[in-house]
Amino acid sequence: MSLQSLTSFFASALELQSRWLAFHARLLETMTSASPGNPRQKTQMMDTITTEGQDNPQATGRKHVYRFGAGAADGGAGMRNLLGGKGANLAEMASLGLPVPPGFTVTTDVCTAYFANDHQFPAGLKEEVEKALNFIGEAVGARFGDNQNPLLVSVRSGARVSMPGMMDTVLNLGLNDETVEGLARRSDDRRFAFDSYRRFIQMYSDVVLGLDHHLFEQALEQYKNLNAMELDTELSAEDWAQLVERYKQIVQDKLGKPFPQDIHEQLWGAIGAVFESWHTARAVTYRRLHNIPEDWGTAVNVQAMVFGNTGDRSATGVAFTRNPSTGENALYGEFLVNAQGEDVVAGIRTPQYISEAARQAAGDDRPSLETVMPEAFAELRDICLKLERNYRDMQDIEFTIQDGKLWMLQTRAGKRTTKAALKIATDLTAEGLITKEEGLLRIDPEQLDQLLHPMLDPNAKKEVLTTGLPASPGAATGELVFTPDEAETLRNLGKSVILARIETSPEDIHGMHAAAGILTARGGMTSHAAVVARGMGRPCVSGAKDLSIDYEGHKMTAGGRTLHRGDVITIDGSTGEVIAGEVPTLQPELGADFQQLMDHADEVRRMKVRANAETPRDAKQAREFGAEGIGLCRTEHMFFEGERTTAMREMIVADDESGRRVALAKILPMQRQDFLELFEIMAGLPLTIRLLDPPLHEFLPHEDSDIRETAQRLGVDEAKLRTRLAQLKEFNPMLGHRGCRLAISYPEIPEMQARAIFEAATEAGQRTGAPVVPEVMVPLVGLAGEFNEIKARIDATAEEVARETGVKLEYQVGTMIEIPRAALRAKEIAKSAEFFSFGTNDLTQMTYGLSRDDSGSFLGDYMSRGIITNDPFVTLDADGVGELVQIASERGRATRTDLKLGICGEHGGDPASIAFCESVGLDYVSCSPYRVPVARLAAAQAALRARQTKS
Amino acid sequence: MSLQSLTSFFASALELQSRWLAFHARLLETMTSASPGNPRQKTQMMDTITTEGQDNPQATGRKHVYRFGAGAADGGAGMRNLLGGKGANLAEMASLGLPVPPGFTVTTDVCTAYFANDHQFPAGLKEEVEKALNFIGEAVGARFGDNQNPLLVSVRSGARVSMPGMMDTVLNLGLNDETVEGLARRSDDRRFAFDSYRRFIQMYSDVVLGLDHHLFEQALEQYKNLNAMELDTELSAEDWAQLVERYKQIVQDKLGKPFPQDIHEQLWGAIGAVFESWHTARAVTYRRLHNIPEDWGTAVNVQAMVFGNTGDRSATGVAFTRNPSTGENALYGEFLVNAQGEDVVAGIRTPQYISEAARQAAGDDRPSLETVMPEAFAELRDICLKLERNYRDMQDIEFTIQDGKLWMLQTRAGKRTTKAALKIATDLTAEGLITKEEGLLRIDPEQLDQLLHPMLDPNAKKEVLTTGLPASPGAATGELVFTPDEAETLRNLGKSVILARIETSPEDIHGMHAAAGILTARGGMTSHAAVVARGMGRPCVSGAKDLSIDYEGHKMTAGGRTLHRGDVITIDGSTGEVIAGEVPTLQPELGADFQQLMDHADEVRRMKVRANAETPRDAKQAREFGAEGIGLCRTEHMFFEGERTTAMREMIVADDESGRRVALAKILPMQRQDFLELFEIMAGLPLTIRLLDPPLHEFLPHEDSDIRETAQRLGVDEAKLRTRLAQLKEFNPMLGHRGCRLAISYPEIPEMQARAIFEAATEAGQRTGAPVVPEVMVPLVGLAGEFNEIKARIDATAEEVARETGVKLEYQVGTMIEIPRAALRAKEIAKSAEFFSFGTNDLTQMTYGLSRDDSGSFLGDYMSRGIITNDPFVTLDADGVGELVQIASERGRATRTDLKLGICGEHGGDPASIAFCESVGLDYVSCSPYRVPVARLAAAQAALRARQTKS
Repeated sequence: MSLQSLTSFFASALELQSRWLAFHARLLETMTSASPGNPRQKTQMMDTITTEGQDNPQATGRKHVYRFGAGAADGGAGMRNLLGGKGANLAEMASLGLPVPPGFTVTTDVCTAYFANDHQFPAGLKEEVEKALNFIGEAVGARFGDNQNPLLVSVRSGARVSMPGMMDTVLNLGLNDETVEGLARRSDDRRFAFDSYRRFIQMYSDVVLGLDHHLFEQALEQYKNLNAMELDTELSAEDWAQLVERYKQIVQDKLGKPFPQDIHEQLWGAIGAVFESWHTARAVTYRRLHNIPEDWGTAVNVQAMVFGNTGDRSATGVAFTRNPSTGENALYGEFLVNAQGEDVVAGIRTPQYISEAARQAAGDDRPSLETVMPEAFAELRDICLKLERNYRDMQDIEFTIQDGKLWMLQTRAGKRTTKAALKIATDLTAEGLITKEEGLLRIDPEQLDQLLHPMLDPNAKKEVLTTGLPASPGAATGELVFTPDEAETLRNLGKSVILARIETSPEDIHGMHAAAGILTARGGMTSHAAVVARGMGRPCVSGAKDLSIDYEGHKMTAGGRTLHRGDVITIDGSTGEVIAGEVPTLQPELGADFQQLMDHADEVRRMKVRANAETPRDAKQAREFGAEGIGLCRTEHMFFEGERTTAMREMIVADDESGRRVALAKILPMQRQDFLELFEIMAGLPLTIRLLDPPLHEFLPHEDSDIRETAQRLGVDEAKLRTRLAQLKEFNPMLGHRGCRLAISYPEIPEMQARAIFEAATEAGQRTGAPVVPEVMVPLVGLAGEFNEIKARIDATAEEVARETGVKLEYQVGTMIEIPRAALRAKEIAKSAEFFSFGTNDLTQMTYGLSRDDSGSFLGDYMSRGIITNDPFVTLDADGVGELVQIASERGRATRTDLKLGICGEHGGDPASIAFCESVGLDYVSCSPYRVPVARLAAAQAALRARQTKS
Repeated sequence: MSLQSLTSFFASALELQSRWLAFHARLLETMTSASPGNPRQKTQMMDTITTEGQDNPQATGRKHVYRFGAGAADGGAGMRNLLGGKGANLAEMASLGLPVPPGFTVTTDVCTAYFANDHQFPAGLKEEVEKALNFIGEAVGARFGDNQNPLLVSVRSGARVSMPGMMDTVLNLGLNDETVEGLARRSDDRRFAFDSYRRFIQMYSDVVLGLDHHLFEQALEQYKNLNAMELDTELSAEDWAQLVERYKQIVQDKLGKPFPQDIHEQLWGAIGAVFESWHTARAVTYRRLHNIPEDWGTAVNVQAMVFGNTGDRSATGVAFTRNPSTGENALYGEFLVNAQGEDVVAGIRTPQYISEAARQAAGDDRPSLETVMPEAFAELRDICLKLERNYRDMQDIEFTIQDGKLWMLQTRAGKRTTKAALKIATDLTAEGLITKEEGLLRIDPEQLDQLLHPMLDPNAKKEVLTTGLPASPGAATGELVFTPDEAETLRNLGKSVILARIETSPEDIHGMHAAAGILTARGGMTSHAAVVARGMGRPCVSGAKDLSIDYEGHKMTAGGRTLHRGDVITIDGSTGEVIAGEVPTLQPELGADFQQLMDHADEVRRMKVRANAETPRDAKQAREFGAEGIGLCRTEHMFFEGERTTAMREMIVADDESGRRVALAKILPMQRQDFLELFEIMAGLPLTIRLLDPPLHEFLPHEDSDIRETAQRLGVDEAKLRTRLAQLKEFNPMLGHRGCRLAISYPEIPEMQARAIFEAATEAGQRTGAPVVPEVMVPLVGLAGEFNEIKARIDATAEEVARETGVKLEYQVGTMIEIPRAALRAKEIAKSAEFFSFGTNDLTQMTYGLSRDDSGSFLGDYMSRGIITNDPFVTLDADGVGELVQIASERGRATRTDLKLGICGEHGGDPASIAFCESVGLDYVSCSPYRVPVARLAAAQAALRARQTKS
């Protein structure tokens, strides 16, 4: 079949873009449990990172129009910036000799010039477009505006990166009162010609003329009502022709001028409208949210129309060159015979499988493409192979078969599940298509996260009560409790519990430990609940705003339903869903692909990866995930348990230093035992222990009954306890009496902690035979003088312990850099500090002047207005906070060239932040145990990219 | 009388240093009402800044010992660093030919070498000291260790800066069992010789041998008891001789070796002991507190002894070359005939006036020095004149008259009251002794503060209940009230009230305005109460810890006394005293000297001085004090009054934007009226208006009864109000939803404020004929995007107002730089911001990670350990916060060369911080109205010093 015959076929006004979107959505539904519209979905099914080359600057020249089709092209895949993603890939496919409907791309440069020049097209464009139209016409044997044999084209946007559904498209352009007759004659189907015309008028009026499409839909409804019709299929050619007249009248009435009959006016109107759609509110918002520069602009693709609904030898479909769900190397996709995209959108017909193998596997009894159109199928399979070899990645393609002839409409890197991504990268490496390093770069580290946590069975039914923030991934089911004590009690009875709190505080830690999952009504992705839960690897849904928790009544209300203590619920920390009852879950499997990826990552990365851990359980988990040490062992969590809490409170209410020392002496053996266990588990790996950090009031009770009870237990007057509480109350505890400030006021605390550390390290070294080099970390230092004073006490304690035990221990004393002033004064602080660990949580709070716990009330406004694109507590603010990290690193190393630098804020597990850490030369990152594999991969990728940049 | 005869006189072991200290203390008491031990005293009576030259590096050489006396000297006043203050001035006086007992100075370099070299004296020192001793001996006609005619010397410390009472001194050195007999023979008074000897043994044993002086005092007591004596005067020569034996025995018993008879051993022991006293705990603490480097070390002065108690032709005294209280150009001082310093210390005898004029003025009937020793007096007067001409400043001198012969023992710049400082600087300038610029540099700007506020009559009796922090200077008396409403009510009845609160909050503002003075039990020098009070010019005592306030009982307890509502009290914000009843006050007078100083200051300063003011009263006060504009007009204080509060609360509880707009429309005319008044008062001077800054919860009631009442007044459900309160509650409000974040969330607020500003500016311009150029300031910006979004709204409002009024107004939109991130991103922010105003209060809080309101609980520990020397909220932390100010200034001006830079934090009124502002090139400082004169002088001094540094 020749190109010449193409335009004579019956056409329907498919909006291909939305058709394929719907198509894809169906496919994806089978691969993931992510609910639509959920923020998590983005990371679960995201673009694989491709290594397409950058534009060749010479190639951009002065040329405005790039042609493709008929076995050749002016452009190629490397020209994405100039031609947009779609245009570049169409050119690439044409160059490869694949069957692409001929067309041309108006470059993004033209778009930029158009806006720069007061919405005027640049000189010379008209002539180039004319030539290119002739090229298409010659290729398909038709002519634009020819009354006998009219060329119909689609006009589509195509930006550098995909902005799905954001921008405008016009199809079937080239129809007017005269060409429609030519189309009717050529197609021998008058009804279809007029149906196509009325669709074109509607779409053009909407996109180009700015008329509401409802006006046209109303007119159609009225016509059907008047004529007692129900379905569009009941309308005859004459009916459509009459409607076309009505449509044209609508345009005349609304705009005071007729619908343009000049097909060149149509074309320029459409090109201009596509450009203008770059600035629609939704597009602007989308770009802000996705950090796409405003000045990129879009290209415009003008292409000959092809149709998949010309009969039983025609079809339309979408496919992945490998299975996007499993990664299996097998063509995977769906198609519909004699169909247009609207059929898919309407959901009237169910697509069929492309390959016979897939059909059989699914037990579908409708025939596969392989069976019904074996030639087209074979060609498609060959093309897929060719595309994979060319792009060196799994492709997501769109195709149309018109009268048995296959046409390729789109190719792009296919989205895939993490499992598939791992398998595809491993296979492509094994097949020699990509290098080991490229394989590493193909996996989004963030994707790994979903492998590490249990997931809800995607096929299970579920009654979603409400949705909060996906604060810590994984799913959990259990009995609902509202207090940490209840959580512990039920857990001790062997029950699985979900702890629901309005918000959590350090007092709740034991309950969070006991719970299988945590749910809060308040707090963001980086609230206390979220941070602690991620650290523990517990699923967590935070900030479920619609949730109303009634502690007194032991119940909560959500989505109009009230649940009581003991009711079973399920939370999905990967989607934020809160679900009534139990939902079956799937346990994660870490296969050989995962192991191989991690091995490759470990080979190439420069930075070490440590974990933030303070319990034996977490430490073990960290080692299982490959952590090379502990970068942050908080010691305060150790004070929130049973007897320790009592001793701690005793210390806080003590009248003087000697009273405090008595209480601390009770804590010493327990603390030593904690460290001993950790040292043994870590077996010689480095372990950074942070001295007591939170303000003392966090250790005291705050509710009346607790206060009374605590006073009794401590044997102090209730009034005295209340006085102490009042004394410790602070306006801004974040900036208050905590961190090393406690150590300055109560030097007996760091002395006790240092003693516990050194005694435990000595004993652990003797037990395991592996020497322990503890790193003692002083928090919240802002002045060199603070650090020096505390270090002197630590050193003195080390000497004492060495004298007592007869063992001289190696150790280091360093500081967290979490106060802007400390970053600025790093040169001075590094004189005595042996390591810096960037506490980027607090450093962000202070540098940004932003309280993590309070920012939820307004960061939403910031995000929605595009003032910020990333939550600075999730991804390190490289411009602001990052500069301080860099300053501190440079100044610190100017004093001490071997200064050890690490990061222990939440950012240590965030891939973008890890890349930043690589760029400033940190020695290690430290993150939650469950983020360790993510960090290993991200560190490897950062190292690879850094080498690429250098070479 | 020859020098030769000096050593033959009877000597007593005066500790001159403490003697003069006591002497001075008595003098000062007559000049100031400052209570001893109060921190304010330091600034009231401080060293005048001198312009003595720096050491000539060549002069330091290798020489260890510098001689002086006999009309010549090796050193001079410019060698303070090498010879210490005392040594340099003794050398200077000797060079001038003044009668100085001959002696020599061992340099500070020797001290440094001594510590560097393991407490060994450097090679060659011994020989130099021997030679210098010979020089003294020759000059006085005696010989060190001569049994017939022994030379006695004093050994005194002398650091670069005075460290009063911190270091050790040994007098009468050179006595042993043999020389004491020589002294007895030469003096013809055996009793005195042995009295001197026993005093020497005691002092030497204490200072050099480390024996407790109580051991010797006990022995003396025992001796007197045994012999039924009461007074020392009852002891005969033989008694003293016996005690000398007992003293030597004590040394033998305690140390196992005899008291050193070798007078050279004595000398080296004393020199070493003076060096060692550099490192006593009290000296180390003193240096930390006064920011004196550890490595400066002290010099040692060895000088022939002279005595004022050799009969009626001898005397001892202290004088100022001008009146230190009034500045009057008249010799002013006291003396005692035939006296030793101990007489003064014991307070047994009252000193007499030196000049006849002073005696007559005081109505004292004991004769003046002018009368009893006219020759010595005449010589003293000449010497004073000579010293003033030489030092070009008023001097504080010590002298001794021995048998009619005058000896000068010390000269140094004299401390003086502010009034005196002004007069002396003006007079010295008029006399041509100093230049206008030098006159400016002679006044400590901080001193001016005491001129501007009412003071308590220093002669009045007062019952001090307790002492808090001197948070805002001046004194006030009034009826005690405990709530802001009571304050307002009583004030409206025409009463003067003192508002006492545990601590204050913005809700108390109206009460603080109504009160004559403010007293708080909690909070530091920079607490809310302190800052607001200083801004208002209200006296304030903050953080009176012993004060227990009982709101319910309408009473407070302090110093064991309970005061009730309505009781009259007085507070002194300059000393921190809280006094029962009324104390008469003195109103400040700003004389011609003050005016002249200010005129000179205005001539030389580069930076403008503006005031922080938001009420007409403050604005007027600011102009009276010479402010050149308003640098910070807070708009929130305007919302804390009557109807406005109600409208504000209505806005806060409104359900949506339209509800908020209704409430804001009520505020608009009031806010416009506020601005109109300010614009008229400032008559064309620049006025920077900050948009709403505090978190909204500050505007809501927090106590149960208030909440109920407010809900009723607003016509909303109490539960709804409580819900809103709970929503607005923040963990760290400092880092929360405030500043420009409110403007982003509720753009209708800045729109209303901008409208009020522009409408008022237009009207004021028309009324006064002076065009107003309002500067609209956006607070708490951290991101360029925030600023841009708000500026767009302000610009749009300006256009609207211009359209409506037909007047196109000039205005600027800028931002506060108070978040570290903003400083770092200044380059980007300056693209659209037309000015930066450094909000160094918050910038310090965030850069330091330090909550101003909470830091009181631990900053004391920091101060006492010397970790910080200045409260960073009082004096800008140049190293940390200052670097960010500098970064922001440089980056901002890199984008916009004419970017206007100012400071509006509390630091804008602190002289040290103002000097910093000059160094980074700010255009203006802005401070409380009452600090404006201080800032004008400080800015002038900073400009002068900057010029000196450059040239």
